[in-house]
Amino acid sequence: MRDVAASTVRRLSLYLQFLDQCEKAGTATVSSGALAERGGASPAQVRKDLSFFGSFGRRGVGYNVPRLAGRLREILGLVRRYRVVLVGAGRVGAALAAYPGFRARGFDVVAVYDADPARIGALVDGLAVRSADRVEADLAAEPADIAVIATPAEAAQGVADRLVRAGVRAFLNFAPVALAVPRGVTVSDVNMALELEALSYALHHAQP
Amino acid sequence: MRDVAASTVRRLSLYLQFLDQCEKAGTATVSSGALAERGGASPAQVRKDLSFFGSFGRRGVGYNVPRLAGRLREILGLVRRYRVVLVGAGRVGAALAAYPGFRARGFDVVAVYDADPARIGALVDGLAVRSADRVEADLAAEPADIAVIATPAEAAQGVADRLVRAGVRAFLNFAPVALAVPRGVTVSDVNMALELEALSYALHHAQP
Repeated sequence: MRDVAASTVRRLSLYLQFLDQCEKAGTATVSSGALAERGGASPAQVRKDLSFFGSFGRRGVGYNVPRLAGRLREILGLVRRYRVVLVGAGRVGAALAAYPGFRARGFDVVAVYDADPARIGALVDGLAVRSADRVEADLAAEPADIAVIATPAEAAQGVADRLVRAGVRAFLNFAPVALAVPRGVTVSDVNMALELEALSYALHHAQP
Repeated sequence: MRDVAASTVRRLSLYLQFLDQCEKAGTATVSSGALAERGGASPAQVRKDLSFFGSFGRRGVGYNVPRLAGRLREILGLVRRYRVVLVGAGRVGAALAAYPGFRARGFDVVAVYDADPARIGALVDGLAVRSADRVEADLAAEPADIAVIATPAEAAQGVADRLVRAGVRAFLNFAPVALAVPRGVTVSDVNMALELEALSYALHHAQP
């Protein structure tokens, strides 16, 4: 995914989150202005983003909510389900396995792994934790689309390397380390400490 | 904060998370190579990042762990405590109020607000939820540095506008909406749905 696409994809996700709410509320049409407000963009940017993927709106009428929501789900790849393996069954990993937002968006956690023998066999959201040694054999038998990395930082790169070799092409990384992956493999990082420190840095260096 | 600084700040945070571990393990010095691995950068980039804030390393010896960690905490503004207000006491807000990483990094949640009368007075991590109507009066009496926004999407911008007028200069935003804020105000977004959809988009559009 190019850098340009990443910011566009971000806005498309925000538009879709808004359209989801409109659908629940029974709203039939929305304006580019309303979409712009949610996506942090101008109405012109909204029209440009959406026309890039085909023309959806009608001047003076706005966008048909279910049709645009359906098209955005297609564009974002949300019309299929994804097989997700989770590596690291500690506090963060266990909380993630139980996160309802995964299943709601079509991401099925199919296996949970840990390297610590004390954790193997424990139940995490109904799944028995497996030994990390089994990752390659399991993925050879039943491939996964996405891996969630919730290991300690020092283990994360080694785990990612093994998963890439086993065919995983997308990572959601909660370990506080920048993962190096080959071209064609995507990493999304979630690191609350980084977000907090970006704020403290900004406050510390603010102009008075 | 400039865009360039944002990526540098991100790397400095990753270096610091590594140095925290080294301190706990009693490691006295680290190489730029080891720091580079954690920050997703080259050793040359590490030396450039750190020399920008003053010279720390000695050729052939590496970086003194406690000294560099101390300096990075200073740079990142982690040598003081921050007063944090949290708006939105629903499921996400309540979980965040109890998040131990806030306090550990010097971020003290001092008040929790909600607009729903049914929630006011309930205890969230030991704090009684206050009416959102009181935000301005409370902040005038006792200013806060950071606001965590955990409201529904449609309420977030209005809440942010009020907080900006009340003097808040940094936001950690969990609402699925792009917040518009004036220059000099910083927003960090945490939105797991966006991260997941970035992955599904990438998988959906991957070259075979």
